[in-house]
Amino acid sequence: MKAKIIVTPKKAVVDPQGKTVQKALEHMGYRGVKAVHVGKYLEVELDGGDRETARKALDEACHKFLSNPVIEDYRLEIAE
Amino acid sequence: MKAKIIVTPKKAVVDPQGKTVQKALEHMGYRGVKAVHVGKYLEVELDGGDRETARKALDEACHKFLSNPVIEDYRLEIAE
Repeated sequence: MKAKIIVTPKKAVVDPQGKTVQKALEHMGYRGVKAVHVGKYLEVELDGGDRETARKALDEACHKFLSNPVIEDYRLEIAE
Repeated sequence: MKAKIIVTPKKAVVDPQGKTVQKALEHMGYRGVKAVHVGKYLEVELDGGDRETARKALDEACHKFLSNPVIEDYRLEIAE
């Protein structure tokens, strides 16, 4: 089983990394870039087991430890 | 239009960040974690325009500048 987690800064939080990438893209001649948001991507490979239990455990881990819920949102997806 | 880019370390490359997260999860009592891979996630908001042109431009940007093709793979997806 594989879990995919995407952690992104909340919309209201300044994202200097995103701004930097956006400016760099413009600077390199890529037109029409309105905004860039940079986040983290985590892929967790799990030993079999129950899908729902895994989701619950990972959801807790995301909230407690893999993201900072004050300034970040996360999306958790269990694949296969 | 929105583009989603996921940059991950290649399978053959050591991923110390992933290893650290894996050990931390184990340490915190989460069982059955076989492996963790940590990568970057980028969301690019684009002004309208042609989907194929955008894909080509971003594919080039990913290759040249948003990822390091020697040690990283990327997945590009144009949404909406």
